[in-house]
Parts: sequence; structure tokens; C-alpha cells
Amino acid sequence: MAHRQSDPAPDPTRRSERSRRAIYDAALALVGEVGYPKTTIEGIAARAGVGKQTIYRWWSSKADVVMEAFLDLSEQAAEAARAAGQESYALPDTGDLAADLKLVLRATVDELHDPAFEAPSRALAAEGVVNEELGRRFVAKLLEPSLQLYVDRLRSAQAAGDVRADIDPRIALELFVSPLAQRWLQYTGPISYEYTDTLVDYALNGLAPR
Amino acid sequence: MAHRQSDPAPDPTRRSERSRRAIYDAALALVGEVGYPKTTIEGIAARAGVGKQTIYRWWSSKADVVMEAFLDLSEQAAEAARAAGQESYALPDTGDLAADLKLVLRATVDELHDPAFEAPSRALAAEGVVNEELGRRFVAKLLEPSLQLYVDRLRSAQAAGDVRADIDPRIALELFVSPLAQRWLQYTGPISYEYTDTLVDYALNGLAPR
Repeated sequence: MAHRQSDPAPDPTRRSERSRRAIYDAALALVGEVGYPKTTIEGIAARAGVGKQTIYRWWSSKADVVMEAFLDLSEQAAEAARAAGQESYALPDTGDLAADLKLVLRATVDELHDPAFEAPSRALAAEGVVNEELGRRFVAKLLEPSLQLYVDRLRSAQAAGDVRADIDPRIALELFVSPLAQRWLQYTGPISYEYTDTLVDYALNGLAPR
Repeated sequence: MAHRQSDPAPDPTRRSERSRRAIYDAALALVGEVGYPKTTIEGIAARAGVGKQTIYRWWSSKADVVMEAFLDLSEQAAEAARAAGQESYALPDTGDLAADLKLVLRATVDELHDPAFEAPSRALAAEGVVNEELGRRFVAKLLEPSLQLYVDRLRSAQAAGDVRADIDPRIALELFVSPLAQRWLQYTGPISYEYTDTLVDYALNGLAPR
């Protein structure tokens, strides 16, 4: 919106944006601290310093506001990546598939170690395990869109002859994405760059001798 | 214990065994119905029809009794497998690695679809995501021992020359085990025999052209 330089009135869009951000921050903090089931619209409103009606004006349910808070969190991460010069609506495509996958998985390792991300993400993931409706929503809105970036990169690798043509890219990506996800979710092992590099090498070359 | 045929006294060992089984069943049912945090020693005792003190005589905490109930559940599954003629302390080793892995993963698909297993397992897994101490215990007692069976089978495949000698078997198994686990835990995709067969083929042969 264009403003006259001399306009002294408070900007309602900017005020809304401040409330929205306060609500997202409160929702993520509460989910991380008390878990999804005990997070309430009332609790979010109180912590954000807004009225309950402000929340109900924009979102129809707790699930909606929590999910959008997570979407916003991942958009902030994407913007930070863009500011750092990385194209984040697509995976890097330097022509070296192994190097590109390793780079992206190393960034994911960093994200999983980020405390701002960890507590709320664990709480939402845990709820999704026992709450199928929320779990499926979480996947559709948050997880699947980022997995599709791997599908695109693997398709381009197929076109370049670096991945076999008969491979289903949506399954193939799970060979390196799911082990990292399981180690993080279930504490089945440590997470490091060396580990994700190894996953990429094993997945591309296979376990059997060549 | 040896008994005289004529001994008419109730067998205290058998009575204990009945109580123990009732306690395990109650613990699994409650965890499946109300989740781990809301399951209590009192609730388990009431549902099992035993006194709280009976539980405290055998277990020191809720985590202990729940974990042993799960261990018992997986031992029952192992015994059913043995009764069906399958050796269950080791993975099959017919010399055909792909066939052996596919067989075991198909059995896991069946287990994941078993309703007696599903609700309590999801509830415990969800709790482990946000409760690191319980999560690590769950892995050490329940998950890691069965993953070690894959390590053994992959080592024997290395000795037979079917898996490259420089592969770390503990990481390698994750290429087919973790995708199945993630689809089950997070509803990221359907689970079928065709899917797990595909995972084994991709992992052994790799995504890159040979």
C-alpha cells in the first residue's frame, strides 16, 4: 500500500501484522511447552496479548492457527535461506546429484538442531502420530510440499541419466529422508553431516557390489 | 517347578502369571485408549482387578510396567512366529538377501496393520517423541534389538559378497526400515507389500544406473 509521507495515522495493516506475529509466536511457544492437546485458543490469546475474538476472526480452530504458525515458521526459514542467496523453492541443481542432496540434507540437520524449531515441531509430530486427522494435515501442508522438491530434483536427475528411469522418485527420496526423520523423531541414533552424506552415497550407489 | 499329580492346592505361580497377564493387558489397553501421560498405576490396577500394591511389588514405575507390557507383546508375536515354524531370533538366511528382507518386511507390514498392536504402539511412540528419556528406553528395549537382527543378516550378506564390505550395516538397514516406520508413524504414504519390496530393491541396487 502507498502512503503519503505526512500521514501520521497508525497503519492498521501493520498493527494486524504485529498481532498475527504475536499469535504465531504464542501458539508455537505453547505447543512446545505444554503440548498440542493442552494448548488452547484462550491460552494463545492471553500469551499474545490479544482478545480471543481476534483469533477467531482469522482462524476457525486451534488446529488452523497452530498449522499456520508452523507454515509461517518454515516460510521464515525459507526467507532466511533466500537472503543467504539460496533458491529455496527448488533444490540446488548443479548437475552433481550427490553433492546437491548432501547440501540440502546438511541444512536439514542444522534445522533439526535449532532449538526454536525443535520443541514445537516435536510436539506437533507427536500429536500427529496419535491424531490421524492432524497428522494427515501436517503432512499435506508442511511435509509433502518440501518432499516434492526432492521429487523434482530426482526427476531432473532421471532426465540427466543420473537416476534410473524406472525409479519412482516419491519412494526413492525416502531412502535418505526417512532415516534422518526417524533418528530425529525416535532417538534411534545420532544426526550429523557425516551420517546424511553416508545415506546419500548408500542410496545412490546401493548396498550391493557394483 | 515339579508338582505331585495329587497336589490340589492352587498354584501361586500360576495365579501370579494370571495377574501379570491381566496387568499387561490393562496397561496396553489404557495406553492405547487415553495415551501414556494419562495412564496411571491406579488405573492399570483397577482395570486388571488387582491391588495397587501388587503392581508396586513387581515394578517400580509406570514406565517400567508399560515397557514390560510391550516387551511381552512382542515376545508373544515372536512365539506365534516360532509356532508358525519361523525362526524369530534371527532373520531368515536362504542365501537370497533380497527375498529374505522382503519376507521380513512383509511380516512387519502385517504387524503394523494389526489393531491389537496399533493403538498402544502409536501412543508409546508419540510419547517417545516428546519424552526423550522414555523414547530412548523404548529404542533400547524394543526397537534396537530387532534392528540388530538386520545388522546380523547384512553382516552375513557381506561375508557372502552380496553387500559391499565398506557398508555400515547399522546405517544400511535404515534405507528400508525407516521409510516404512515414517509412513506408519506420520501417515506420509500407504503401506503395502509392493512398497516394502520396492524399498529393498532400491536399497540393494541403488538409484543410480548400474
